[in-house]
Amino acid sequence: MQFENLNNMTDKKKPLILITNDDGFRARGIRTLTEYLKEVADIVVFAPDQPQSGMSSAITSINPLRYFLYKEEESVTTYICNGTPVDCVKLAMNVLERKPDMVFSGINHGSNAAISVIYSGTMGAAIEGAIFGIPSVGISLCDFDMEADFSYTGIIATKIAEKVLKEGLPKGVCLNVNVPKGEVKGIQITSQTRGKWINEYFRSKDAAQRDVFWLRGNFDNWEVDNSETDEWALTNGYAAVVPVKIDMTDYETMAKLKHWEEVEVSEQ
Amino acid sequence: MQFENLNNMTDKKKPLILITNDDGFRARGIRTLTEYLKEVADIVVFAPDQPQSGMSSAITSINPLRYFLYKEEESVTTYICNGTPVDCVKLAMNVLERKPDMVFSGINHGSNAAISVIYSGTMGAAIEGAIFGIPSVGISLCDFDMEADFSYTGIIATKIAEKVLKEGLPKGVCLNVNVPKGEVKGIQITSQTRGKWINEYFRSKDAAQRDVFWLRGNFDNWEVDNSETDEWALTNGYAAVVPVKIDMTDYETMAKLKHWEEVEVSEQ
Repeated sequence: MQFENLNNMTDKKKPLILITNDDGFRARGIRTLTEYLKEVADIVVFAPDQPQSGMSSAITSINPLRYFLYKEEESVTTYICNGTPVDCVKLAMNVLERKPDMVFSGINHGSNAAISVIYSGTMGAAIEGAIFGIPSVGISLCDFDMEADFSYTGIIATKIAEKVLKEGLPKGVCLNVNVPKGEVKGIQITSQTRGKWINEYFRSKDAAQRDVFWLRGNFDNWEVDNSETDEWALTNGYAAVVPVKIDMTDYETMAKLKHWEEVEVSEQ
Repeated sequence: MQFENLNNMTDKKKPLILITNDDGFRARGIRTLTEYLKEVADIVVFAPDQPQSGMSSAITSINPLRYFLYKEEESVTTYICNGTPVDCVKLAMNVLERKPDMVFSGINHGSNAAISVIYSGTMGAAIEGAIFGIPSVGISLCDFDMEADFSYTGIIATKIAEKVLKEGLPKGVCLNVNVPKGEVKGIQITSQTRGKWINEYFRSKDAAQRDVFWLRGNFDNWEVDNSETDEWALTNGYAAVVPVKIDMTDYETMAKLKHWEEVEVSEQ
């Protein structure tokens, strides 16, 4: 299957992949991703100069953005930027001479499955790639251990990059890939699990004995038995691939609300 | 029509609306919204203590959150919080004794139509309300003038609040309301216009003559002739109401990618 936004790469030796993340350019996840993907493509890393976790699709508008060439190696050029993950993709697309054939964001340290896609800076960058019409993927390893082994996720990233570079992706769609800890049985194409985070704050005191609140929590899965969901795949040892749309319209509800058009809104 | 997440309000005199925004608690938009909505509900304002434009669904995880009671007036209690719009909704839902019947975010100073829904802190808060299962609305006035008149948008907000409090909204769906400048002919229920921002950066120099980049741009509408879109409604003098889903899964693409499940991912 071929999708229409597949770049014509016949005149280039190797495709170009733009890599970014939300943990910052120093993170082990992005270094692993770069090591693996440079085997299948030329790489431009354009990543935040500091951690930007939970930044979603935030953009910087009041302050100026800067970027610097950090390192040039064979098939890998690294830039660092003082913005969010989305800023990195936007600015890279505006300043890079060669248009990337693909955007790859990650490897995130921790899950971005289910509703976490909404808060994820990793996925913010992948969504931004899709807004630019470039086949884009965000990838996360569901292991919070500081010593987590990213290498296996690197292999899965390579397989997915090869697939996407060959087949493209539909316009306006990117992929949210989450990889379970330990051995992976295979890939499952799934939906975003319905549910929400609960027990969201840990309350403690500051030095002046005032209340402060720290985000934490655990995911309450509302469809534990649905084997078509990303959480089910992860629990059962599969990497979950969710196709994510940039059009957030609920067309079904549009029809249901049509009668609102009768509401009179003229100034009293 | 009644939707299932409509709270039972028969035992209360007035419903409770949680108001937040992304321009901060001092902004004229949130003060106008509060003035209008206090006529139909008790109000808790729980808003950022400073501007949080373009924050999307960003959450604060590394630093602690704080909130303070700022003011108590008849039917309006105002708290301020050092977090993002989503932090405000999350924290309010975790600390308030009475669960709101509705979340209303805005009035934003400037459009959040089309793809801007993705970057909008105003909409981040409304989406968070929907994650909590509460009927939620984000509202914006498409007028960047510092002297913009928010009062007419306040009237539209009141009409929409009355509709939503009476009918509820489907689970997992919130509303993105954008109001055009000037006279408004009515409300249209629309989709999110396809397109993207272009000419996104203004390049200038800092004091050390280094390049700095400032976000700007204009929206390139890819479906100018589609009268079902929010940009069409706004251009033609209507307030645009887009139902926004929190499930970002593209179910159509799921089917198309099913053959990927054959990919072998075992470690070499």
